[in-house]
Formats: sequence, C-alpha cells, structure tokens
Amino acid sequence: MEVISSLKKESAQINDLKNIMSLLQWDQEVMIPARAAKMRASQFATLSGIIHRKEIAPQIGELLQEAEEKLDEFSDEDQGLVRVMRRSYDENTKLPEEFVTDYSKLTSQALQTWIEARQKANFSLFAPVLQKVVSMCLQKADYLGYEKEPYDALLDLHEEGLTTATVDAMFADLREPLIAMVNHAGQKSDKGLTVTPPFDLAVQQEFADQVLAQIGFDFERGRQDKSTHPFTTSLGHHDRRVTNRYKEDSVEFIFSALHEGGHALYEQGIDEKIARSHLDTGISLGIHESQSRLWENIIGRSLPFWENFYPKLQKAFPEQFKNMLVSDFLKAINVVQPGMIRVEADEVTYNLHVLIRFEIERDLFRDLLNVKDLPRVWNEKYKDYLGVDVDSDANGVLQDIHWSHGSFGYFPTYSIGNLASAQIWAAYRRYDAHAESTIRSGNLQKIRLWLTEQIYRHGSVYPPSVLLQKVTGEKLNSAYFKEYLQEKYR
Amino acid sequence: MEVISSLKKESAQINDLKNIMSLLQWDQEVMIPARAAKMRASQFATLSGIIHRKEIAPQIGELLQEAEEKLDEFSDEDQGLVRVMRRSYDENTKLPEEFVTDYSKLTSQALQTWIEARQKANFSLFAPVLQKVVSMCLQKADYLGYEKEPYDALLDLHEEGLTTATVDAMFADLREPLIAMVNHAGQKSDKGLTVTPPFDLAVQQEFADQVLAQIGFDFERGRQDKSTHPFTTSLGHHDRRVTNRYKEDSVEFIFSALHEGGHALYEQGIDEKIARSHLDTGISLGIHESQSRLWENIIGRSLPFWENFYPKLQKAFPEQFKNMLVSDFLKAINVVQPGMIRVEADEVTYNLHVLIRFEIERDLFRDLLNVKDLPRVWNEKYKDYLGVDVDSDANGVLQDIHWSHGSFGYFPTYSIGNLASAQIWAAYRRYDAHAESTIRSGNLQKIRLWLTEQIYRHGSVYPPSVLLQKVTGEKLNSAYFKEYLQEKYR
Repeated sequence: MEVISSLKKESAQINDLKNIMSLLQWDQEVMIPARAAKMRASQFATLSGIIHRKEIAPQIGELLQEAEEKLDEFSDEDQGLVRVMRRSYDENTKLPEEFVTDYSKLTSQALQTWIEARQKANFSLFAPVLQKVVSMCLQKADYLGYEKEPYDALLDLHEEGLTTATVDAMFADLREPLIAMVNHAGQKSDKGLTVTPPFDLAVQQEFADQVLAQIGFDFERGRQDKSTHPFTTSLGHHDRRVTNRYKEDSVEFIFSALHEGGHALYEQGIDEKIARSHLDTGISLGIHESQSRLWENIIGRSLPFWENFYPKLQKAFPEQFKNMLVSDFLKAINVVQPGMIRVEADEVTYNLHVLIRFEIERDLFRDLLNVKDLPRVWNEKYKDYLGVDVDSDANGVLQDIHWSHGSFGYFPTYSIGNLASAQIWAAYRRYDAHAESTIRSGNLQKIRLWLTEQIYRHGSVYPPSVLLQKVTGEKLNSAYFKEYLQEKYR
Repeated sequence: MEVISSLKKESAQINDLKNIMSLLQWDQEVMIPARAAKMRASQFATLSGIIHRKEIAPQIGELLQEAEEKLDEFSDEDQGLVRVMRRSYDENTKLPEEFVTDYSKLTSQALQTWIEARQKANFSLFAPVLQKVVSMCLQKADYLGYEKEPYDALLDLHEEGLTTATVDAMFADLREPLIAMVNHAGQKSDKGLTVTPPFDLAVQQEFADQVLAQIGFDFERGRQDKSTHPFTTSLGHHDRRVTNRYKEDSVEFIFSALHEGGHALYEQGIDEKIARSHLDTGISLGIHESQSRLWENIIGRSLPFWENFYPKLQKAFPEQFKNMLVSDFLKAINVVQPGMIRVEADEVTYNLHVLIRFEIERDLFRDLLNVKDLPRVWNEKYKDYLGVDVDSDANGVLQDIHWSHGSFGYFPTYSIGNLASAQIWAAYRRYDAHAESTIRSGNLQKIRLWLTEQIYRHGSVYPPSVLLQKVTGEKLNSAYFKEYLQEKYR
C-alpha cells in the first residue's frame, strides 16, 4: 500500500495548491482592489506553473503505473484516486508544452477578439481566430486520443466518458417533445415577475443567506459574498464559498442562491476521509449541474417549497409581496418564454439552446460545417427549434464566451445536469413517497442527507455514469426529465 | 547585466509566492469560515515549503556571488536587490534544515504553553520551554554569525544592521528624561476619553474609511476590513490592505486606522519600477513603525489635525461629540498614564515598556540573567521605571506573545520607530516651515508626497541606517523624540 500513500501525499500537495489557486480567483472576483488585477495575473501564472510542474512530475507517472498493476487490491476510494490522478496526469502530459503555450496565446487572443466582435455584433471579426481555435482543438483531440471521433475527446475533458453518440441519443428523445412544449407555451402570453418598488439590496443579501440556511448550507464551512457573476468555489475541504449578485428590480438572486447553494451542498457533503486529495470535489460538470438544478428548479421552483418559504419572502419584502398570492408568485417564476439568450432561458427552452450548440459543435468537428457559416446555421436553428428570430450576432452566435476559450464539449454538460437532476429526483421519490410533503414541511435536511449518502460523500470516487447507475439503477435516461416537465407544465 | 535580470526573474517569482502567502494570511484573519482554519494550515505548510525551496536554490547563491563581484557597476536599485536577496538567502541557508524543523516544533509548543501559562497567570509553567527557546536562539545566532555578541544577530534579523550597542546608546539618552516625565504625569489625574452612548459600529467602519481617505490611502490599490487585531499586509504592488477592529465604547479605531494607514501609505508609495521584487516592501520594522507612528501620533494626535478633522467626527457621532470642545478631545486622547500593559501605553510610557524588554533580552543573551528570575526582574523594573506594581504574571512578564515565537530582538524596533518618526518629522519641518498650518489646512498630501519622495518610493533599496541618514542628514538620534515629547507635554 506504500504506492497509495505516496500518491496521496502528492495528491494532498497538489490539492493544497489548487485550493490556493481558488482563493486567488475568489479574491479576484470578490475582494481585489480595482488596480490590483494586473499583478494578480502574474501570481496566477507563477502558481499555475508550479502546479503544472508538480502534476507532470515523472514520479507521479511511475506511481500511477505501479498502482494500476494491482488496482483491484485497492478500496473504491483508492481506485478512484488512481483513476482521477491518471486522467489529470494524462491531460497534462499528453499535450506538448509548445502546444500548450501556443494554445494559451491563441485563446487569450480569441477572447479579446470575441469581446470586440460581440460589442460590434459582427461575427466575421471573430471567424478567423475561431477557425484557428477549432483547428487547435482538433489537434488537441488527436493528442488526447479518442475511439470514434475527435469531438469525443473534447466531451470527455468536460464529462468523463461522455461521447457524441451518448449526447445524440440523449437529445434524440428530447428534441420533439421539447419543441412541442415550446410551441404550446409560445401561444400563451404569461409574464414573468413584475414588482414595484425596487428591492432593497441589503435586504436581498440578508435574505440570500436565509435561502442558503434553508437548504442546509453550513456557514461554518463556507460563506456567501457578492460578485459580478454568481459562482461556487472550493478553497479547502471545510471552505466552500458561493457568490451572488443583486439587482434592484429582480428576485433572481433567490434562484442564484439555490443554484450555487446546490453546488456548494455537493462540495460540503464530501466525506472528510477523501479531503486534501484529487477526490475532494464533485465528479463532473454534469453531475454538479444536476445538484444545482435540483435545488434551484425541481425544489426551488416548486409549489411545496414556496408554500413553506413564501411567508419569509413576504416578511423580507412586505411592500412587494404582501398582496401577491403564492400561486401567482409561482406562476411568475415558472413562465416559459422562448428567447434568444441561453442564460435567461427557462427550464423548458434551456435544453434547446444547448441542443443547438451541441449540433453545431458536433458538425464542426465532423467537418460538416464551416466556421464562416455559423451565424446562418445558428439563426436557422433558433427559428426552427424555438421559433425565435435572432436580431444580431451579439444576441446570437456571439452570446457565449465558451468558444473563445476553446471550451468545445462543455455545453452538453448543462443538459446532462438537467436530465440527471430529474432522474435523481425520481430516485428520491422512490425512497420518500411523500417527497412533496417533505418539502412543504421545510424538512429539506431529509433530502440533503439522502443526496449526501447517495452522491455527495463520494466526491470524485466514481465516474459520473457509474455514480448515476448506483444512485438511480440505470444510465442517463431523458424520460425522467420529460415526465418532470410534462407534469409541471401540464 | 544578465545576472541582474536573472536575479530579477527569481525575485519576481518569490515575490509572487510571498504575496500569495499574504493573501492566505489575510483571508485567514478576515474571511475564513470558522471550521476551515485547520486545513488552511496545510496550505500554508505546502506553500512555505515551495517558497523555501525556491529561496535556497543553488542558482540563486551562484547568481548572487556573480553579482557581488561587480556590484559597483549596478544602479542603487540593483545593488539593493542583491543586498536584500543576499540577506534572505543567507538567513535561509545558514540554518541547517534539521535546526529549522526543531525550532519550528519548539516554538509551536512554546506558543501553546505560553497561552496556558498566561491563562493561569503562572510564569513557572512557561519557564522550561522558554529556556529552550533562548538556547535555540543562541544557537541560531551562532549559525547566523555576529561581530560582538549573540544578541546582535537577533537584532539584525529584525532591523538590518542593528546592534546591542546602538540600542544601548539610544536608550542611554532617553531613559532618565522619560522616567522624569512619567513621574510628573503620574502626579496628575488626567482621564482618557469617556463618552456615552456607545458608538454605532457601522458608523465607525464608515468613519475609519474617511480617516484613511483623509491621509491619502488609495482605495483603488487597497482596502480596509475587520479583523481581531489590526494589521497591514501586502498582496501585491497594487494591493496593500489594512484591517481594523471596532468596539462600542472606544474611538481607538481612529488611531488604528491612522497607524495601519501609515504602514500602508509607505507600501503604496513604493516605486512601481521595483514592483514584483524583494525590494517591494518597506525596508525594516523600525522604519515601517516610524511611518505608522508618524501618522498615528505626531500628526494624528496633534491639535492642528483635529482642528481640521474634528467637525467630521462630530458629524459622524453627534450625540457623543457635539458638546465636547476639540481641546478637551485632544487632551483625552493624549493622556499620559503609567500602566502595566505595553499595547495600551501612551507615547511617553511606551518606550519604557520597550526599554524593560530590551534590558531583559540583552542580559538573557549575555547570560547575566536566568529565565527563572524573569518575573522578579520584570516587576522590579516596572516599579523602578514606571512606578507600577505588576499584579500578576499575566499582566506582567507573560503579556506579550513575542518570546514564545523566539522573536528576541523585535521589541527595540518599536522604539526605533518612535524615535525615527520624530527625527523624520523634524526633517519635514525644515522642509515645510509651516508644517502646522499644512496639517491644519488638511493638505496632508503635501506631507505624504514628501515622505514618498524621501522614503516610500525606495522600498527596500537602502538599509535603514543609510535611508535615515539620507532623509535626515544624521543617524538615529533620540534628541528629536525627546524634544517632541517635551514640546507636546510641556
């Protein structure tokens, strides 16, 4: 077992350094004085260099090889450690240093160009550099290796084991029902929440803490602060932080708190015995998103939740809510409205936004699509699937930052999160036949403890597909999400 | 010049990592969730290990040797860099690794024992481990080397070039006049500030920012937060942060803001051309303290400052101050009152507290004093110099944390700070004959710019004694401080 304890030692140090990196990032988003950002960048560079050199150290390769020869002697946790460290080692060593440097230069140039192109709503400015990014990502896929097609390698980077075929199958069952639901909703004219007067920002912040407390966020092992974009980060096993943003005309912060809170509950629920290791984090983007979506949408936009929690909202904002029925509030926060912008999308339309991006990425990497044609294809798909006319590249093909980073293969994980959340929720309902009453009674701890037992405590021990199988008894199945939506919007 | 640019590259990386270390510490004091501290400790350990290995890298030794051979070809800044990196390299390489490990174990044990002994007000619990700390510090002095006596090596660690003889000479001129002033003050019965009702804590925090703004703290390059003990830290050239604490029955936060603000102005005033290097920090504890004391005491407890600033205080706390004359406020914040506790001491008695500690340390390291006799000697000196009866070890010999860290040689830098502040202020008054009116008019920028030009911009380029000579035309001279006190308390 000496090899495992050596790996654990390396893992602990790398984990420490990555947590320090997260602190640098958190501080940069939340605390840093205006003029300090530039020199912070050099601190990032110095620290990432050190982390990278630690991760590619030959002794890690040797230890991994030794460990893999007797893998079945190890516990699940130790096998998980070897698997996750192997993934990270390969990802860091398969790409030649020169390629990494060139890629990093290209994507920082691409980011600048994307910002400018979006400002000018002109995709043709972005097209040449995006073409280069696509080419380098193809090359990256070759370095990393794949079985069937290059895009598989990129998907696997974001969701261990994910393939184009799996995503294709996932959307095959979903596409038509979703389009039908959107068509149906498009004919109604429901409105979102319109409330006056403005919400006091200080009260919002206080209420956001109440929301986190309600779902069981542990403030002794984390905190909530303000930033431009909400995010969750981990600075150590007992230090999981979320951020939120507050606008005077919106209660969006409540759903951000639930969303980031869901991510944080996952991280806070990881077993302490795998602290200070590569295993001390949620297993994948998709499974992570399943938890944020479960708390934000399945629980947080449900009638039972608000039957319990609405009086607190009314108390915090009496002028806005004292005369609004909880049923009207619920309707307003669940409106389905096809639109151009992914991040503003509701539960029904969201996955169509993702589908469009997936189809484009897939076809790009199959060389069935040219970069220059993206705006046309994008707009056609928006018309076909969502019935939406895209009014400019800025609100269309240029709206997301992901491609400028070269993050192809990322978008599908959002839909995996939505689908998995419904599938996991169905499993919970088999465990708790009175799930609705449980929510209505405010006993969310019961749900959190079940999720902790089933999912959270394992951290990254099991690959996402294995974990989902363990928890739900089957692989990813879009039927549950479809049923969930149909039941909700019937 | 290649050797200098290689040194600069090493220096930049070490500086990045040390700034990251400061962020870890700052976050630990200001932000960290309750249960996260333990795992933060392992992050500290991992990062300090990396920094240490970088600092003792043989190539730095080689570069330094090469650079020192042609030192006079270099600019003042580059010479400074070589000098400061040499000091740091020697400090890190002269001590054997085993010694460092043992020392670190011993002092963490000593800290725990000190905490317990102080709680129980029983020095004899602390004596055995303190004896070991003294022995190891003697050994440390041997490793580091010295010319005349071991204590010189410890002084030099805290204040470059400082010797026992210098401190002896400094106090020789000061001791009798100070004791006389204390005797005189002891006969009066002036009182400190007593104000009702309690000060609102939120208003205090807001006002603390006003205080910093008043002296020219740049909030785009720093911030002020709350912590248990006020401190100043540097997280990067454009990121100098201070903290403060707030109590309902006290305006002490104002003087903390001025004190930490003084430290921060120094750091914010360093020239950008020496950013990301060993030079990007104030040169020594003594010179640093001269700046905190200058802003806190010489300016911040002066009549002209409050003639200008008192209306703002009255506006922030009308109930407490609307009926108090500025002259009464000034008297209250300048009361001289001999006491047992150093950190509560006023400008006159403070240096006697330091003198007592210096004499004890000096005699300990000359082997003229046994650890077991410390309480008796301590109490005798408090009676002799301050006329104070020490009521318990907790309020006497056990009051300071320093010795449990092995920080012998630290205390004298506090007095150097006080003395240098008066000496530098005298130089300013030669430059600005209307210094009082300058303060009264609120034009503190004039003072800050002069200090920046004379002191701040140089960072660590010049050794403290050289810098003081440059700024004031002479070496450390206690006459200025004596005159300052006599003028103030006449």
